[in-house]
Amino acid sequence: MSKEIPYKIYLTEEEMPKAWYNMRADMKNKPAPLLNPGTLKPMTAEELSGVFCEELVKQELDDKTAYFEIPEEIRNFYKMYRPSPLVRAYCLEKKLGTPAKIYYKFEGNNTSGSHKLNSAIAQAYYAKKQGLKGVTTETGAGQWGTALSMACSYFELDCKVYMVKVSYEQKPFRREVMRTYGASVTPSPSETTNVGRKILAAHPGTTGSLGCAISEAVEVATSTPGYRYVLGSVLNQVLLHQSVIGLETKAALDKYGIKPDVIIGCAGGGSNLGGLIAPFMGEKLRGEADYQIIAIEPASCPSFTRGKYAYDFCDTGMVCPLSKMYTLGSDFIPAPNHAGGLRYHGMSTTLSQLYDDGLMEARSVKQTEVFEAAETFARVEGILPAPESSHAIKAAIDEALKCKETGEEKTIVFGLTGTGYFDLVAYEKFHDGIMEDYIPTDAELAESLAKLPKVE
Amino acid sequence: MSKEIPYKIYLTEEEMPKAWYNMRADMKNKPAPLLNPGTLKPMTAEELSGVFCEELVKQELDDKTAYFEIPEEIRNFYKMYRPSPLVRAYCLEKKLGTPAKIYYKFEGNNTSGSHKLNSAIAQAYYAKKQGLKGVTTETGAGQWGTALSMACSYFELDCKVYMVKVSYEQKPFRREVMRTYGASVTPSPSETTNVGRKILAAHPGTTGSLGCAISEAVEVATSTPGYRYVLGSVLNQVLLHQSVIGLETKAALDKYGIKPDVIIGCAGGGSNLGGLIAPFMGEKLRGEADYQIIAIEPASCPSFTRGKYAYDFCDTGMVCPLSKMYTLGSDFIPAPNHAGGLRYHGMSTTLSQLYDDGLMEARSVKQTEVFEAAETFARVEGILPAPESSHAIKAAIDEALKCKETGEEKTIVFGLTGTGYFDLVAYEKFHDGIMEDYIPTDAELAESLAKLPKVE
Repeated sequence: MSKEIPYKIYLTEEEMPKAWYNMRADMKNKPAPLLNPGTLKPMTAEELSGVFCEELVKQELDDKTAYFEIPEEIRNFYKMYRPSPLVRAYCLEKKLGTPAKIYYKFEGNNTSGSHKLNSAIAQAYYAKKQGLKGVTTETGAGQWGTALSMACSYFELDCKVYMVKVSYEQKPFRREVMRTYGASVTPSPSETTNVGRKILAAHPGTTGSLGCAISEAVEVATSTPGYRYVLGSVLNQVLLHQSVIGLETKAALDKYGIKPDVIIGCAGGGSNLGGLIAPFMGEKLRGEADYQIIAIEPASCPSFTRGKYAYDFCDTGMVCPLSKMYTLGSDFIPAPNHAGGLRYHGMSTTLSQLYDDGLMEARSVKQTEVFEAAETFARVEGILPAPESSHAIKAAIDEALKCKETGEEKTIVFGLTGTGYFDLVAYEKFHDGIMEDYIPTDAELAESLAKLPKVE
Repeated sequence: MSKEIPYKIYLTEEEMPKAWYNMRADMKNKPAPLLNPGTLKPMTAEELSGVFCEELVKQELDDKTAYFEIPEEIRNFYKMYRPSPLVRAYCLEKKLGTPAKIYYKFEGNNTSGSHKLNSAIAQAYYAKKQGLKGVTTETGAGQWGTALSMACSYFELDCKVYMVKVSYEQKPFRREVMRTYGASVTPSPSETTNVGRKILAAHPGTTGSLGCAISEAVEVATSTPGYRYVLGSVLNQVLLHQSVIGLETKAALDKYGIKPDVIIGCAGGGSNLGGLIAPFMGEKLRGEADYQIIAIEPASCPSFTRGKYAYDFCDTGMVCPLSKMYTLGSDFIPAPNHAGGLRYHGMSTTLSQLYDDGLMEARSVKQTEVFEAAETFARVEGILPAPESSHAIKAAIDEALKCKETGEEKTIVFGLTGTGYFDLVAYEKFHDGIMEDYIPTDAELAESLAKLPKVE
């Protein structure tokens, strides 16, 4: 009856998805539109195409089309590192002594070390197709910048990365990988942009933030002929491209007749979570199936669990459109002791709407317990996980231990978004017992939320 | 007729090898035995079992048995990261404009980042089975130490790693991964051993060497109850375990009816090369097929191409048995500007004999051209290669370019042993144009070769 499940389920190249899936098409309550910060009117395609590639603008604004064909050139690139394995965590199950069945979709088997490459290659492709010279972007922990530099190198596009200064200094190796792929990397805030100079004048010692690096990258893209800006998370187009994660996951599970009970993903801007859950949420939206879907975020940057659902700026320099999302305020920056990514103040508008509609849950977890889970996982499953991914590991372990208590044989699927090779400074702190947890106070959050723009 | 070749050929778990293949069984001229450095008599199983686990001693000395069954526990561990993909380098072929067909067996998709895990898990398994408390070892670039710490963590064995001091200081992240897996890591030479203290007294400022770290690890293993020493290369047992690389490669090629013309592997102590070529060399030894087999070594540590085939010490402290091999002399240490591994003064006795019998070729390549090849490869194939593996890339590119000239459609297979995430200091030097090549002079080599022990 039930086939024996291998340690790793791989699809064949023929079984790989040929189209991305757009959750918005099945949503009754559509995500709120981006607003022009000046007029407070929805951004038009024309306005957006000064910032983004034309084809990507179409994807960004389209909440009707359920499937977008994946161009052959992108599918060929995907074949270099995809399909990614869906792994049955036999060893973790044994270690925990749980009756639960745990699966993880591992996206770290490529040089960028994370799922970010899935959208980077798509965005680079459309930029190339439009005849652009290059693209600009920001990067925090460095995963997105690395992915984009790989994608640009493949299509021979110039790539300018603004890297949050504190990461630039603490992660020289990330920078070096980007250089290997021919990207130029500038620490942000920098003297190369108006917004950078303004921020440096106001906060001379600042170590930067994602919001501020976004402002710089957007300024360069909009003021340099032949360039556009690309973003690695939050946007609808990114969730669309990342749906390849969920589509592969679902196809692999279907191959063995497995129906998950719980689906868990870490959430910063939402790119991984939105991609992993896409086809499952689609079934849920269409009333075809039900799943428990859980977003896991850091207690130090808790936009879902402690943020407000409101229009806010996407960046610190306030040059980007306004987005309706769960947000902590565009001024909010998690404490420097927060390791890894998942440090964006806001959240994907699509996921925000789904969460607001009660279609998914959210939980926050503390950094030290995340690293404990990471170490437990590494020792039995072999893979050294990224701090981001380890948020999902922590929650999956919690769920599996609940099953141990209740005896339930739930099937748990989580996203293992990447590897931790560039996060060893954080691992070292954890081993040395000097890693700290940071949880913003209510007063801190109230202060940054008080600065939300007035819309309506 | 010919099936379309996918980008990555994966075996199913059922198709994975169930036994390792021992090339020595098919060799007419057997590799020379290890000698006791005191008596100059062949080492007995009893003598060796003070240093190595009993089961591994059997494998070490057995030059008759062609196949050793892979225990189920090891096969289960293999399933966590194997089968490794055999990749068709479509993008590299296109970039080079060559009619050659290039394949590489990629062994870097595991946290140790290299093929070393294949033997580490086997050696840890036999240590556990023997009821030992732990094992000791040395590590240079850190790949072997990482692999062994992962394997020991899986079987809950203690793991003491002596890490060459210069690597310990330059590669704190490698150390941190080993700590994640619970290993203790000591910079070598250290004050914790007699041999370490002696070397420190003689060379106070020394940054260490592999040969010296081996001496320390062996001393600790032989003087601590419940411990044995394990080694990641050079030995027959290691080549046996690594044959899983070649067996998978051959099975994947056979699936598509592909017969390689040229097989290329980088060679330091010989673990990867010996594993990759094993079943192909077997056919060659039995007269069933012919292949061009090429070992690639660094010009800075050229044991095959400029060494002497003679008995030598395996370590600097001269506590290990004597081994007949191509050697540069146990005193030889490549210049500090040599990046990555492949820095051992000697070579596997099995490969040495095969090379001496004219069954394989050897070439040396310079460091800067190796990094050029690495960057070319990374930009089109996506993977950031380890410096070690990039020696094979360089040679594969050379062969493919020859085909471009002659129009020959040769099938080239090379071993991509690992990833370069921990070698970014070397990549940085390369990008900054300050990487140097080092080629030992004849006088330098003559000096270290003059100290070979007198045997016979």
